[in-house]
Amino acid sequence: MKIAIIGAGYVGLPLALAFSKFHTVTCYDIDKKRIDELQSGHDSNQQHSKKNIIRKEISFINDKDKLKKKDVYIVTVPTPIDENKKPNLNILRSASVLIGKVISKKSIIVFESTTFPGCTEEFCIPLIEKSSKLKFDKDFHVGYSPERVNPGDKINTLKNITKIVGANDKNTLLKIKKLYKSICKSIYTTNNIKIAESAKVIENIQRDVNIALVNELGLLFDKLDIPTNEVLKAAATKWNFHYYKPGLVGGHCISVDPYYLSYKAEQKKYIPKLILSGRKINESMGKYVANKTKNLMLKNKIKLSNSNIALLGFSFKDNIPDIRNTKIIQIYDELKKQNIKIKIFDSIVSKNEVKKCHNLSIYNFKDLKKFKYDAIILAVSHNQFLRKLTYYNKFYKNNKKKIFIDVKNNYSSYNFIRNNYKYFQL
Amino acid sequence: MKIAIIGAGYVGLPLALAFSKFHTVTCYDIDKKRIDELQSGHDSNQQHSKKNIIRKEISFINDKDKLKKKDVYIVTVPTPIDENKKPNLNILRSASVLIGKVISKKSIIVFESTTFPGCTEEFCIPLIEKSSKLKFDKDFHVGYSPERVNPGDKINTLKNITKIVGANDKNTLLKIKKLYKSICKSIYTTNNIKIAESAKVIENIQRDVNIALVNELGLLFDKLDIPTNEVLKAAATKWNFHYYKPGLVGGHCISVDPYYLSYKAEQKKYIPKLILSGRKINESMGKYVANKTKNLMLKNKIKLSNSNIALLGFSFKDNIPDIRNTKIIQIYDELKKQNIKIKIFDSIVSKNEVKKCHNLSIYNFKDLKKFKYDAIILAVSHNQFLRKLTYYNKFYKNNKKKIFIDVKNNYSSYNFIRNNYKYFQL
Repeated sequence: MKIAIIGAGYVGLPLALAFSKFHTVTCYDIDKKRIDELQSGHDSNQQHSKKNIIRKEISFINDKDKLKKKDVYIVTVPTPIDENKKPNLNILRSASVLIGKVISKKSIIVFESTTFPGCTEEFCIPLIEKSSKLKFDKDFHVGYSPERVNPGDKINTLKNITKIVGANDKNTLLKIKKLYKSICKSIYTTNNIKIAESAKVIENIQRDVNIALVNELGLLFDKLDIPTNEVLKAAATKWNFHYYKPGLVGGHCISVDPYYLSYKAEQKKYIPKLILSGRKINESMGKYVANKTKNLMLKNKIKLSNSNIALLGFSFKDNIPDIRNTKIIQIYDELKKQNIKIKIFDSIVSKNEVKKCHNLSIYNFKDLKKFKYDAIILAVSHNQFLRKLTYYNKFYKNNKKKIFIDVKNNYSSYNFIRNNYKYFQL
Repeated sequence: MKIAIIGAGYVGLPLALAFSKFHTVTCYDIDKKRIDELQSGHDSNQQHSKKNIIRKEISFINDKDKLKKKDVYIVTVPTPIDENKKPNLNILRSASVLIGKVISKKSIIVFESTTFPGCTEEFCIPLIEKSSKLKFDKDFHVGYSPERVNPGDKINTLKNITKIVGANDKNTLLKIKKLYKSICKSIYTTNNIKIAESAKVIENIQRDVNIALVNELGLLFDKLDIPTNEVLKAAATKWNFHYYKPGLVGGHCISVDPYYLSYKAEQKKYIPKLILSGRKINESMGKYVANKTKNLMLKNKIKLSNSNIALLGFSFKDNIPDIRNTKIIQIYDELKKQNIKIKIFDSIVSKNEVKKCHNLSIYNFKDLKKFKYDAIILAVSHNQFLRKLTYYNKFYKNNKKKIFIDVKNNYSSYNFIRNNYKYFQL
């Protein structure tokens, strides 16, 4: 089979690499720089090695014309939100129009991008029809198979997970199923594209709501002076308790997908209050961490203005360079309002990207020692940050006022107390 | 050890039976009828057999004076809510006052009743001190060990589960731990009563919120004409998805405990919006089921007034006689407004109790055949109701308008369609 993949990011690249073991794969991205790096065998997302990327069965292209005459087109482009937290379908629109220009009769198109139920049939297919002048279901066929990529996860890989495959007609469903069966151990089929779309979006919503719940509990227990992490640890001894931990929710999935479904819901005049109140809590956590930091500094008689803070970590997730929707920026912005001087350390993210997106400079972790601080905020648990607590002693301006904000609960409270730290943990 | 258990219900009885294998147990209940039945070896909750109940090491009493001179007092009384959904602590108050009257120096009191964090120390202990004229921590000691009883569950029994034990001083903690170690395989200790109280209440809150989420999704997908159960089944193929199903949330735990925590939260001027919006959704589901039933009847040209409905099941949970906070009454009340004639069938619940609490008559399931109906609502999945769908054919007034409301998704939609049923599933 000749497979074209539209989008060479976190979803498209592993898919292209997997399919290239059994098929001829053309992997297209609109970003020339991304294609250049992949052609040279480099993945700036740090997920795949040069040895795996450079294979003769796979070509990375930036030239649309080379997308013609393929059997299957798989769309893996991002589906972000705009500044009003509404779906930004521009990239999906461009991809659909592009596909219309390159497909031929009998082509099969599979969408993997996360979206709201109905999007494939009501938004993408009409665009393809218009741009191709071909008829859906007669000339070309469409399926939906939601990506379940979990960057950094070595267990739940594309090969190991169950892949949902949806198409409205049996024939297309069987063809797409067969295709994915070559690269995934387990396939789950549904004869309704909307079911496949819905399944994907609710997976991330469930995660978002569960994190929001422990965040809400954390905000309350903080007021009651009860250690949230101890409560969760105790509750987790119940056979059916899900051990979520409070935290910042960033990234391109969990902090985005709920808005896709609520967009569709609001079109139908239904306000999903539970989902939206979960979002609201999770959106507030960066500011909350900043406020707890300020309060702890004030309580320890540190003047905020011109004080110095080391902020460790900028990506949205541990050991990943991905900075999309990182909530660390909320902490930064809130502290900046008080004229606090903040240095951000992260050796994993791309300094250029942070400069471009946020106009901020990022230091390497090894440069932490060049300065002294009034407070340290450990915001992301990159492996490089996970030292013994005493390692951080030497970076404080005043060793009696060692303020440490342990956002992700890496240390036991016992450890903080024994080492005379003033601390806050989510 | 001489152990007294205050409250001989779903929590107290199994505890008394378990302890009686190693200790002498006195099990007290304020309800004379309950004590009478237990003395004769009968458990109207249908959880324990006569052989297990009648043991020489256990005495069931209704006489407070016989509670004196025990080593340990364990409180397992109910903690319900009042009509405003605020904690009704009357029973806990009475139990605390009673304990104050019967304890002596060195007594240990353990509370198992679910409550809000702080309740044991701020509400119960002062009552005991006042009533006993003894001093907490000096004369008597207190711990908290939340019950995790799951009626009908043969796997997660008192013996098999991890039991949380909390006490603020090490000595008491060790004593209570040792006590429970005799009957539970695994003990989790915490040196903070509030942590133990909080852990219990959040377990049920997490369950309530997760059911509320799938209910919210169900309400939305219904508007989008997408089958919720199919979406959940597909999503459940993800490695970290929790497979909750939409439904009515009744009973004395999940539908009650969130109000205990929100009561405490509101005292601290914190409104737990996520938890409360979950509650609101779950509280609305009975009415929703009734409305879907009415709409389906109208759509099939059945006049509501004087129509006949068979409502199968009245308890809050499958195969359990417990009717506390059953949400079936919401379905009943809503349908009654349209002058619909409803017969409720349930051979498991106590007919007297339903008469007393709701002034309703309950029929045995075998009497279903005595009448004919316009619609059948299968609201609780008691084993006795789970027949082949065609079994229900003969009970319809008009076999072309077989309306079946499958609240708990017992049948596949394929089955409904094949057998020409008009159906609704949550």
